[in-house]
Amino acid sequence: MKKIDICLTPELIHQHDLTGTVVVVIDILRASSSITTGIAHGVKAIRPVESLGECRELKLKGHIGAAERGGKKVGGFDIGNSPFSYMNPEFEGKKIAMTTTNGTETLRKSKGALQVLIGSFLNYSALLTYVERLPCDILLHCAGWKGKVNMEDTLFAGAIVFGLKQMFEYNSDVPLMAANLYKQARNNLKSAIEGSSHVSRLLNLGLEKDIDFCLKFDEYKIIPVLKGDYITKLKLSDMLF
Amino acid sequence: MKKIDICLTPELIHQHDLTGTVVVVIDILRASSSITTGIAHGVKAIRPVESLGECRELKLKGHIGAAERGGKKVGGFDIGNSPFSYMNPEFEGKKIAMTTTNGTETLRKSKGALQVLIGSFLNYSALLTYVERLPCDILLHCAGWKGKVNMEDTLFAGAIVFGLKQMFEYNSDVPLMAANLYKQARNNLKSAIEGSSHVSRLLNLGLEKDIDFCLKFDEYKIIPVLKGDYITKLKLSDMLF
Repeated sequence: MKKIDICLTPELIHQHDLTGTVVVVIDILRASSSITTGIAHGVKAIRPVESLGECRELKLKGHIGAAERGGKKVGGFDIGNSPFSYMNPEFEGKKIAMTTTNGTETLRKSKGALQVLIGSFLNYSALLTYVERLPCDILLHCAGWKGKVNMEDTLFAGAIVFGLKQMFEYNSDVPLMAANLYKQARNNLKSAIEGSSHVSRLLNLGLEKDIDFCLKFDEYKIIPVLKGDYITKLKLSDMLF
Repeated sequence: MKKIDICLTPELIHQHDLTGTVVVVIDILRASSSITTGIAHGVKAIRPVESLGECRELKLKGHIGAAERGGKKVGGFDIGNSPFSYMNPEFEGKKIAMTTTNGTETLRKSKGALQVLIGSFLNYSALLTYVERLPCDILLHCAGWKGKVNMEDTLFAGAIVFGLKQMFEYNSDVPLMAANLYKQARNNLKSAIEGSSHVSRLLNLGLEKDIDFCLKFDEYKIIPVLKGDYITKLKLSDMLF
């Protein structure tokens, strides 16, 4: 039987064998939501980079520069990590270089997988439909917050497990735990994450609009996929079935 | 405000500063339940050791030898890891050397804390009353299963957070997540953990009686505490207030 598991933080990724596995990277607030938004709005490709230096360099080479640290846009770059800034019609067909507090590292640590996808509530059903049909194991890789497990990424991973109609074997207790948490929270996701540390952090920065948007289901029908150094839109020819 | 946090697996312990913190080690199935049972039944002291070799050596020096691997008693030792075997009246006043799959490592990785306690459902209220009155931060350290997060230890950690009457600041999202899971599961803990991998493992070994016992609240009013190399009963003079 196909297996599904959840890695609650990139610091536990060594527990998982990525070979032959499709990994879904989850950083709800806000990297994976922003990537989904950008790709859905016609951004050609997004290159996740670790450092501000690399991001600056790519900006000099014609990329849009997107840089966030601690929830805030870094000075000297075009945009930060708000999904709304990824809707800019001027970015259509362009490339973005992006560096964020947690998301980028999670992507890097997912390399070696059969395929690396980006998941968010914004593309929930599209993602669920695709991963469910995959002939291989699935790992939901939560970015968390600076290595720590967080509520919103765990809830989204739980939403995926909860939504599966096919039988998957749980490779640890975590899928069951996350699905139970989601089941309990699903009628009011926002209130469920309001006690979360990262949400308080973003609310203090005046980013409630971002949070509300990142918790919307199925705004988009696309799936971002990491191919080489760039994230692009998953095409028919990329599908593994 | 005093802080509380949960470390879901010993593999994440580096994220926590143990200085000035009281750590509660949790390995519900079955090390912390067995330790609680043994100490409550008059065992003088329990020495957790990593290897079967050390355990054998201490057995030769007059300790009762308790060794478990993969849920089973290891040949050549007196007992394994069943709480019932720790009730033996012949062990009263004696020392036990104990090695288990997960619990021992969690204890070792808790060293450096202000005080290391052992928690289980069997001594829930005694533990809760004590930790709540502590003037310092608390870390609930779950043993998990071979480094992986597990359901039963997380649920117990959640039960402690849920039971606190005083205000504690949550140092990450995990206390809230675990307390929510416990709230959902508390009316039928057994069914909540039945999907858990370790429970299936123990059920396959015919250990349902052990599981039922390990899920009993407040069988005992004692708190085991690690002092130097040995776990003994927490005495008035050990209390940190």
